[in-house]
Amino acid sequence: MTATSPSFADALARAVSAKASAVLVGLDPHLALLPEEYAAAIASGERGRIAAAVADFCRRILDAVADLAPAVKPQVAFFEQLGPPGYEALEAVVADAKSKGLLVISDAKRGDIGSTAAAYADYHIGLGAKRPMPTLPNLGADAVTVNAYLGRDSLAPFLAYVPEGRGLFALVKTSNPGSADFQDVATVSSGGARNYEMVAATIDDIAAGYVGGCGYSSVGIVVGATHAAEARALRQRFRHLWFLVPGYGAQGATAGDVAGCFDAQGLGAIVNASRSIIFAHREAKYARFPRSAWAEAARQAALDMKAELAAALTR
Amino acid sequence: MTATSPSFADALARAVSAKASAVLVGLDPHLALLPEEYAAAIASGERGRIAAAVADFCRRILDAVADLAPAVKPQVAFFEQLGPPGYEALEAVVADAKSKGLLVISDAKRGDIGSTAAAYADYHIGLGAKRPMPTLPNLGADAVTVNAYLGRDSLAPFLAYVPEGRGLFALVKTSNPGSADFQDVATVSSGGARNYEMVAATIDDIAAGYVGGCGYSSVGIVVGATHAAEARALRQRFRHLWFLVPGYGAQGATAGDVAGCFDAQGLGAIVNASRSIIFAHREAKYARFPRSAWAEAARQAALDMKAELAAALTR
Repeated sequence: MTATSPSFADALARAVSAKASAVLVGLDPHLALLPEEYAAAIASGERGRIAAAVADFCRRILDAVADLAPAVKPQVAFFEQLGPPGYEALEAVVADAKSKGLLVISDAKRGDIGSTAAAYADYHIGLGAKRPMPTLPNLGADAVTVNAYLGRDSLAPFLAYVPEGRGLFALVKTSNPGSADFQDVATVSSGGARNYEMVAATIDDIAAGYVGGCGYSSVGIVVGATHAAEARALRQRFRHLWFLVPGYGAQGATAGDVAGCFDAQGLGAIVNASRSIIFAHREAKYARFPRSAWAEAARQAALDMKAELAAALTR
Repeated sequence: MTATSPSFADALARAVSAKASAVLVGLDPHLALLPEEYAAAIASGERGRIAAAVADFCRRILDAVADLAPAVKPQVAFFEQLGPPGYEALEAVVADAKSKGLLVISDAKRGDIGSTAAAYADYHIGLGAKRPMPTLPNLGADAVTVNAYLGRDSLAPFLAYVPEGRGLFALVKTSNPGSADFQDVATVSSGGARNYEMVAATIDDIAAGYVGGCGYSSVGIVVGATHAAEARALRQRFRHLWFLVPGYGAQGATAGDVAGCFDAQGLGAIVNASRSIIFAHREAKYARFPRSAWAEAARQAALDMKAELAAALTR
């Protein structure tokens, strides 16, 4: 990669440094948790109305946190569940976030083969002349999460956009308890490496071709904050991989748990919190905010998380 | 499961027997391969017009093959790439297929955790009172493909709909060359089993709770036809799992390759062909059909595949 090539990894490093924040705000508009002002829209059962409420909610969250986070991560499932209007909302939210200077990671966890994988890549992160139909509107996120179970060739269509400035994060060790079922199984052929270590090593090998000036690659991995020891070991071993770290907050991980995901300069990881930020108004900790001030509660939660991470990194 | 519970496995067995066909027609509307009558719509670059063309194409394919196939499998990526109008087309195609008596398997390969997995399950196969919002429109396919890398708990929201008559197929051994990268790696803890065998064993354990009167479970697996020996071994070992078998036709597998996926009664597998049926008009083998008769070419290709499978099973 030449110095003049756009690089998602470098853009992410610049944003983390400029905002002095590794907070990745997850946009998971779970309908049952939205503020009560949207209750009538949701109760209508009309997808268009519900999707408009979701888009409005996300817009106001973005207004509240845009200066506190380098990136946001819309969870595609919560938009897809609303069908066509849900995708309208998703596209509006991504465009809104980009207009506010935020990097956008589409949390789609897609994984398929051949021309199917290409269709997913084109939609989520496609841009420029490399697209089959460059003028066709698409989501155009800066990066996307992928599931690599189908193998290296399933990633190729996504990698085609990395030299254009896009990124991807492959699932390695997920934050849920069930991640142990397959990801933790030890393998024979990789010298006893567990499956998630084998996947990480493969992604690291791929990522080596896309390292930016910041020292990190535009191809990263997802490592759950709920597995602090494993994450720390991965950080020590794979020094060029950005970590997307879910599990903070609602899933129970703390700033201390994620500290091992960062390098000595405080780079190398972005820590996702979704519910604990966007639905902070439901937490006892933020009960001092009036019910209608849910966006302010979200801002405070993002501020608090930013401070917690900073404190953990300077210890 | 009581004898009166609806069962996707039983519905599939009935459909395969009634139509004497194990042909699973894949609806993969790759824009570059659509018949030339849709060229103007595609060239317009307007997603609404393109999606309408895709829906029209799929409707005519369904008309042509409905009596020859027990089920169809829309590939969600080719609809998602068109954004909101693409999901409109997807929903229209699923409704159309169901109205024609076809079972529908949404090829989404989704995989996520907690409430996110629930949102995917609700949209793709959700039905009835178990849905958080039973009146919200959704895709409502009969079954969905899933990626189980995230573990058993990631499947739970999908399994919740199985007693209602829905099904799922977990990726085990995919048809692409890169499937070897992770799926074929031998593990330590499962007595040397390869990863795909370990995943299959786990799915088989789950599937045991959902066996229908036909002897097969509504929880099945995806096994590529391009791996004939592995598929045969899986069939011998896991006698209650429906196999969804991709890779036939365009990917090179033959009827002989897939014969080992069936039981002695000719049940237990549905064999997917996408491009070799829906784009048969592009094949030299069907050059006798006028260009405008692409639906007739697709019908002939489905007839030929049905006959090829039947011949291979009676050998």
